[in-house]
Amino acid sequence: MSKKLTKRSEDYSKWYNELVVKADLAENSGVRGCMVIKPYGYAIWEKMQAALDKMFKETGHENAYFPLFIPKSYLSKEASHVEGFAKECAVVTHYRLKNAEDGSGVIVDPEAKLEEELIVRPTSETIIWDTYRKWIQSYRDLPLLINQWANVVRWEMRTRLFLRTAEFLWQEGHTAHATEKEAIEEAEQMMHVYADFAENHMAVPVIKGVKTESERFAGAVETYCIEALMQDGKALQAGTSHFLGQNFAKAFDVKFANKEGKKEHVWATSWGVSTRLMGALIMTHSDDSGLVLPPMLAPIQVVIVPIYKGIDQLDAISEKVNPLVKELRAKGFSVKFDNRDTHKPGFKFNEYELKGVPVRLAIGPRDLENGTYEVARRDTFEKETVAADAVISKIEFLMEDIQKNIHQKALKHREDHITEVDTYEEFKDVLENKGGFVSVHWDGTTETEDKIKEETKATIRCIPMDAKEENGVDIISGKPSKRRVLFAKAY
Amino acid sequence: MSKKLTKRSEDYSKWYNELVVKADLAENSGVRGCMVIKPYGYAIWEKMQAALDKMFKETGHENAYFPLFIPKSYLSKEASHVEGFAKECAVVTHYRLKNAEDGSGVIVDPEAKLEEELIVRPTSETIIWDTYRKWIQSYRDLPLLINQWANVVRWEMRTRLFLRTAEFLWQEGHTAHATEKEAIEEAEQMMHVYADFAENHMAVPVIKGVKTESERFAGAVETYCIEALMQDGKALQAGTSHFLGQNFAKAFDVKFANKEGKKEHVWATSWGVSTRLMGALIMTHSDDSGLVLPPMLAPIQVVIVPIYKGIDQLDAISEKVNPLVKELRAKGFSVKFDNRDTHKPGFKFNEYELKGVPVRLAIGPRDLENGTYEVARRDTFEKETVAADAVISKIEFLMEDIQKNIHQKALKHREDHITEVDTYEEFKDVLENKGGFVSVHWDGTTETEDKIKEETKATIRCIPMDAKEENGVDIISGKPSKRRVLFAKAY
Repeated sequence: MSKKLTKRSEDYSKWYNELVVKADLAENSGVRGCMVIKPYGYAIWEKMQAALDKMFKETGHENAYFPLFIPKSYLSKEASHVEGFAKECAVVTHYRLKNAEDGSGVIVDPEAKLEEELIVRPTSETIIWDTYRKWIQSYRDLPLLINQWANVVRWEMRTRLFLRTAEFLWQEGHTAHATEKEAIEEAEQMMHVYADFAENHMAVPVIKGVKTESERFAGAVETYCIEALMQDGKALQAGTSHFLGQNFAKAFDVKFANKEGKKEHVWATSWGVSTRLMGALIMTHSDDSGLVLPPMLAPIQVVIVPIYKGIDQLDAISEKVNPLVKELRAKGFSVKFDNRDTHKPGFKFNEYELKGVPVRLAIGPRDLENGTYEVARRDTFEKETVAADAVISKIEFLMEDIQKNIHQKALKHREDHITEVDTYEEFKDVLENKGGFVSVHWDGTTETEDKIKEETKATIRCIPMDAKEENGVDIISGKPSKRRVLFAKAY
Repeated sequence: MSKKLTKRSEDYSKWYNELVVKADLAENSGVRGCMVIKPYGYAIWEKMQAALDKMFKETGHENAYFPLFIPKSYLSKEASHVEGFAKECAVVTHYRLKNAEDGSGVIVDPEAKLEEELIVRPTSETIIWDTYRKWIQSYRDLPLLINQWANVVRWEMRTRLFLRTAEFLWQEGHTAHATEKEAIEEAEQMMHVYADFAENHMAVPVIKGVKTESERFAGAVETYCIEALMQDGKALQAGTSHFLGQNFAKAFDVKFANKEGKKEHVWATSWGVSTRLMGALIMTHSDDSGLVLPPMLAPIQVVIVPIYKGIDQLDAISEKVNPLVKELRAKGFSVKFDNRDTHKPGFKFNEYELKGVPVRLAIGPRDLENGTYEVARRDTFEKETVAADAVISKIEFLMEDIQKNIHQKALKHREDHITEVDTYEEFKDVLENKGGFVSVHWDGTTETEDKIKEETKATIRCIPMDAKEENGVDIISGKPSKRRVLFAKAY
């Protein structure tokens, strides 16, 4: 398979699909819509998990694990919830296979039919709130702050690696609170945690906001979100945090005795991010040569490639490189010394560019003589010759600088692609010719939202948290509006 | 709910079930056979995962993720494999629900029937080897050393928390090799890794061995195992590692070109441990007061309980305790200062005994005066008064000593419960009245194995790796035997 990628300018979508496969991140499996996450892709996901898990624990959450299966009757208990998920769920109906009597192979045993069908969880509110009923009696049991790392299944018809798959990996937080105020604060807090992670670990700038009613999670009172902008001008929802009110507490009869001994329904939140973040990471930073990874999430941060003829030169280089590798590892860097003799340096350079390794060192006979390394950074392709005794501090500098630089670059792209317009003509023109977020006044009705969606495929990505009050009029209805919202075409 | 446990001597099985629930480890869910792993139980599992994951990576393995669903036709490709799993698998047949037309609620949409049924993975050999066919072309692609952390489902009819559940969490390693020798070495290596983990992290002594043909994994050529002994004299299989020969490579047509360019089938292994290890951990060390945890896996290693009257005394104690907590945490210990004013010290003492916290410090007004702490260890209940400036070194000592002591205790119990016998009468007597492993000569036939199983419920747990050659005769058939095997009743 050629390692060369389609150019983004030619076909962004094709570029993405090729990159995911060629950089060994993921591939389609033999099971419709389900992906295989390959070791290199999974190593990035593990780094994301570790950082997020730490942030969750620092904000007082504990991990637990709930069943994969949800009885159909549970899913049905919250009306808008089942409405939202019924159309795309995998249903277990039998619990046994058997050999067909006509010898045609293995078939489902009709005698092993479940009394009640089980749904493979698309999200776990229902099974968790059924459990919380047993765990919560008194205000002393609150808040209950729990997170789960799990796989979920939503039977999407059109799937794309990482962005939309039938099965995906995620975390889902589910918290229970004594008061509405506390639950809202929790939902907002987790939106901020997600934004912090996106900005400072993934180097992906995001806009924090709330969803409109039609874009809300099925069963939520308010959905907070972080929205990112991809290089092709399409938005990507990178994480959501929901204030669920008392909807699930009422559906599952979860009450607590308050300090006065009076029974009240519990207030809830849920929040999640998924392997979709991998898609956001890839599409925010990468280029026509391949992946560009933020140093904080790169499985290999520094690769060292020897340039040599014959074993003697390799030995001399290794003698120099091995102590450097050791020292870098002791400083916590992930380093690979690629001394394979089966591949030429040029091949290796391309491979590590494709895989987004932030810093590449090369060392050949002349460097040996001069006591230097060639240091190349992935984000800008800049190369320079660095004295061996300065190479560690150079790497330390680059780790921070690359992290900062790719964030800045993405931020500039995002800022350049938020366009304020005041007429529907301009709106359509921007969507068509420039892309990105279009900031417009909206009258707050689902009617105009739907009309715009139907005509342009753009949706309201969010009402930004920091939107300032401003008098304006809806671009469709002409009705008054107090603040601007962000529309965009989205993944 | 009373925190008091049934005594082990009264009803070991009841004691176990109560302990798992009362110590907040896990509980049954509303879904038949599926458990909820509660935060305290999950925290122990996370520690197990972290230690195992490190060991896997140190032995060259990488993590990846494969689909939850296995098409029925995949499962059927390896004959003995499907034979082993067909009888207990969850089958997905539909991908949508809809509202019933008669208004009776949500039903499975008959029009959304899958063309081919999907099995919720009971283990992933088939989906993984279907993927490996694409990944392996040449000897350069080998060995392929991959592990997956995942949930799996086996529709067990009789379930028990951690020991046997319809859904459980596990890791499954799947490796591919160019030669038979290398694959066997890998399978053996992973048995040793598991044994190392059991002995040195869980403090659970295990016997390494191989399974007889009838106890082998469905599709394996050889199954290596580690076997532990519980306090009630029943054995528990704690981990298995399989040499799969070329069975899956042949079923999925996975070939590689060797150095001479000739195509050969690949050699395989798979190996796994699961949340069942939690059961082994609990049943090996715990007592009538509750859990006993090895310090290396304890979510809370040290708890500090203040004994006070009024806020002034608590303030004075906190002033003393807070710097200690800080110092212990800096040293990497997990410490909890339980200053809740809603519960009395006696209640707290019982709670932490129940939860198996290895070391408890108590500090009251007299300790304040004398500059001391009362230090209690969970494994032996020994208490002593320790000067404040010696308390950290005391804790450091206890962490190691408790880890060692509970291992020694379990080892002594195990050694006391391996009984060599040479007649079937003695065999039955030992099984009936003493329990544990019974070491006997066996003629190597499934016939005698089955007869013994039928008559006594004991199975051959393993042929120990270190069994010495010795001439003997089978206790049933009288036929010659070269070495002893270990029988036991097992979980």
